[in-house]
Amino acid sequence: MESGRLKPMDAEQLRENAHKMVDFIADYYKSIENFPVLSQVQPGYLHKLIPDCAPNHPESLQTVLDDIQAKILPGVTHWQSPNYFAYYPSNSSVAGFLGEMLSAGLNIVGFSWITSPAATELEMIVLDWLGKLLKLPSDFLSTGEGGGVIQGTASEAVLVVLLAARDKALKRVGKNALEKLVVYSSDQTHSALQKACQIGGIHPESFRVLKTDCSTNYSLSPDLLAESVSRDLAAGLIPFFLCATVGTTSSTAVDPLPALGKIAKSSGMWFHVDAAYAGSACICPEYRQYIDGVEEADSFNMNAHKWLLTNFDCSALWVKDRNALIQSLSTNPEFLKNKASQANMVVDYKDWQIPLGRRFRSLKLWMVLRLYGLENLQCYIRNHIQLAKHFEELVGQDSRFEVVTPRIFSLVCFHLVPPGNEEDYGNKLNHDLLDAVNSTGKIFISHTVLSGKYILRFAVGAPLTEERHVNAAWKVLQDEASALLARDSVQ
Amino acid sequence: MESGRLKPMDAEQLRENAHKMVDFIADYYKSIENFPVLSQVQPGYLHKLIPDCAPNHPESLQTVLDDIQAKILPGVTHWQSPNYFAYYPSNSSVAGFLGEMLSAGLNIVGFSWITSPAATELEMIVLDWLGKLLKLPSDFLSTGEGGGVIQGTASEAVLVVLLAARDKALKRVGKNALEKLVVYSSDQTHSALQKACQIGGIHPESFRVLKTDCSTNYSLSPDLLAESVSRDLAAGLIPFFLCATVGTTSSTAVDPLPALGKIAKSSGMWFHVDAAYAGSACICPEYRQYIDGVEEADSFNMNAHKWLLTNFDCSALWVKDRNALIQSLSTNPEFLKNKASQANMVVDYKDWQIPLGRRFRSLKLWMVLRLYGLENLQCYIRNHIQLAKHFEELVGQDSRFEVVTPRIFSLVCFHLVPPGNEEDYGNKLNHDLLDAVNSTGKIFISHTVLSGKYILRFAVGAPLTEERHVNAAWKVLQDEASALLARDSVQ
Repeated sequence: MESGRLKPMDAEQLRENAHKMVDFIADYYKSIENFPVLSQVQPGYLHKLIPDCAPNHPESLQTVLDDIQAKILPGVTHWQSPNYFAYYPSNSSVAGFLGEMLSAGLNIVGFSWITSPAATELEMIVLDWLGKLLKLPSDFLSTGEGGGVIQGTASEAVLVVLLAARDKALKRVGKNALEKLVVYSSDQTHSALQKACQIGGIHPESFRVLKTDCSTNYSLSPDLLAESVSRDLAAGLIPFFLCATVGTTSSTAVDPLPALGKIAKSSGMWFHVDAAYAGSACICPEYRQYIDGVEEADSFNMNAHKWLLTNFDCSALWVKDRNALIQSLSTNPEFLKNKASQANMVVDYKDWQIPLGRRFRSLKLWMVLRLYGLENLQCYIRNHIQLAKHFEELVGQDSRFEVVTPRIFSLVCFHLVPPGNEEDYGNKLNHDLLDAVNSTGKIFISHTVLSGKYILRFAVGAPLTEERHVNAAWKVLQDEASALLARDSVQ
Repeated sequence: MESGRLKPMDAEQLRENAHKMVDFIADYYKSIENFPVLSQVQPGYLHKLIPDCAPNHPESLQTVLDDIQAKILPGVTHWQSPNYFAYYPSNSSVAGFLGEMLSAGLNIVGFSWITSPAATELEMIVLDWLGKLLKLPSDFLSTGEGGGVIQGTASEAVLVVLLAARDKALKRVGKNALEKLVVYSSDQTHSALQKACQIGGIHPESFRVLKTDCSTNYSLSPDLLAESVSRDLAAGLIPFFLCATVGTTSSTAVDPLPALGKIAKSSGMWFHVDAAYAGSACICPEYRQYIDGVEEADSFNMNAHKWLLTNFDCSALWVKDRNALIQSLSTNPEFLKNKASQANMVVDYKDWQIPLGRRFRSLKLWMVLRLYGLENLQCYIRNHIQLAKHFEELVGQDSRFEVVTPRIFSLVCFHLVPPGNEEDYGNKLNHDLLDAVNSTGKIFISHTVLSGKYILRFAVGAPLTEERHVNAAWKVLQDEASALLARDSVQ
């Protein structure tokens, strides 16, 4: 490139280079099973491979692609590998990828309606579409006082509704009452709620983390909540926020929404339902029951980027009272004023979220829903649940292992039962087993702790996973378990 | 697609469809000048064009692309048009677009080092690269106690440092002292700071918005700040956060960092420097002077997605004390624990930001720096500043207009001087002029208000803008001004 003549957005250069990148990415997916699923590099590996400074002069795309192949891909943990069973899935799809391309291609910043009317309006429409697929009550749709919005993550979703609830409560009871506000959740609730409290200035001692155990399959007990709320009310405190989860991160526990919703309502709390992972399953009639009671909620969240084929990030949040969000999060600087906003004729999503700027993320969700259609998406979910069920059966056939919580969706929680049932040894054994299987590079799984026990999590949900991958994964687990048990019996 | 056999991530389907999308996007850039820059649709337009529900069965990519052409593009405000001069630019480039493609293709979620070591390590390295190009003090680099991180937007950047500063102060003075904490900025500071205060629970009455005027070209007066701080200290309050701006949103005012930094230091405040727009210019030696004094800052932010060819979003934040961020923003749930994190051997960026999940955004910045190189990027910046200077000269040659603040970077603030110099009429006249030029669809500019006067902003910075576009824009402005003045003189 001649200095001073940089043409950074030349259409033909884009065409030529982007076609190369398409082939690079398609080839990546063709060879994805050749990589260790969990990257096996050591901390600091990249520092040794990359110069200390940016270049003065341009390098060629081929040089960069060669570096990506040789230096970056070894440091990637392959979330899209069919052998990825860790955490929860983060789905990629052709449709989602095309939507990302288009969004990056248009590269608009849709903070206000006027900065790209289509970005705001398509988001409203597509979240109504998805809300209807989930059979959400109509007061969550954009036709009334509520509506949907795409957040980056479930963390941001719970943060914005916590802030809305906080400010609504403070408006009622006085702005200096922050220390009296109390938040409720179970000990299985995602750490995002704790972080939201930290950010919003809620003191740790005002955050009730209610204990769960296997008697309720780790779901929150309404009795425990009612007791806690009564105690706080008696002490002059102000219950203001309840977060229930449908499909907890540890074990897919489902909190009983109808009973919890009643308590929230009677004590004037904002009731948020986090279905980040399991929400996707609720597009199937047979799983919709798990969010029964969502009628009582003030807000509901699910991540289309987890298990609904929409590339990260795309966290769908619906609220019944959009003004509560706007009250908390709006600013109105002169340089952003415009006729449509001032006349209150439009939605400006900047006032529904933390950042000002925002990408045109509804495109990818729209493309997923249109290019696949509801029936295919339902089959997609059912297939993963079927595969998880299959894995559960495999575990059940090997008496050395045990499934530790009932499988509801596509996550199986299990562990290797320690000979003699000694808990400390069992925890070490399963910890070592996790390490051993992940070190093979053949599969990647993760863990949790339930009632003090170290538990292995096998989450089916990568778009390329088939039955043969589940079978192979089980074989890896069995083999590594055999090796560990042999090691320990020799010692 | 056969039901039940959905292959959502088939490499060959991706290849075929993504090649089509590349051509669609390249064709968009070829025809971008044919669209009205500012979308001319009416609120609610899209609702009439799109069905109420998602389809049950898949639709073809061609159907969707046809809809994008016919229904979406008319509702897009074309930020990448060479005739876009509104707000600040939001740069797209071939390199940035390729980086976005790759990031969406790999679709990893890099919250912890282990979830893709390359994502964390490349981000550290590339932010060191960019920090060096900006000649930031070395304590902002990852080699010491500090380091850089990519946030989504400058709003998130100022929020996370405000929270870090808040919690550091509360640790010192007691956790119930929130109401005593005071924030300082000028009345030109971006509304993101006000929003950060709202989120962090800082009361509006603890937020000092210090007045500026044309005597300092709308930069914050150190004397005014010193007075305000003294008054607050005398009243038993606790100054804890100062936000200075290099290149304000209204008029590119540059706050005097060295003097402000001294005051911040002597009163124990966290000193944040927001150079969201103008930071990019500081890669040129002749503009680096505008961030002299950044040595005194605790944190520094610039948006590579504004004026450095990196597609949205990519907001670079550097801090001197990364532990302050981590103290404020970390959570450590069991399900995310892993050897590398527990041993404190690695950076986990989840603890430097609001959300948990994060995209592999360093790829696009890395590709921009490598595919263009420093010298080309410097020429790119200088060319825009030269074009703005040219526009300033054009305005200066027409006695009906006036440039209202000294042009420093690539923004020209000007207005049509009302005959008789009557302020209310002048404001209406310029408001009408803005409306008139934006309604032509030929250009898009925005406005601000300075010292009560309605001012037009002409921000050069779209990657495709050339001198001919600036000349044509000026012609539109002159013609519409003539028409308005003729209208008013007839009445």
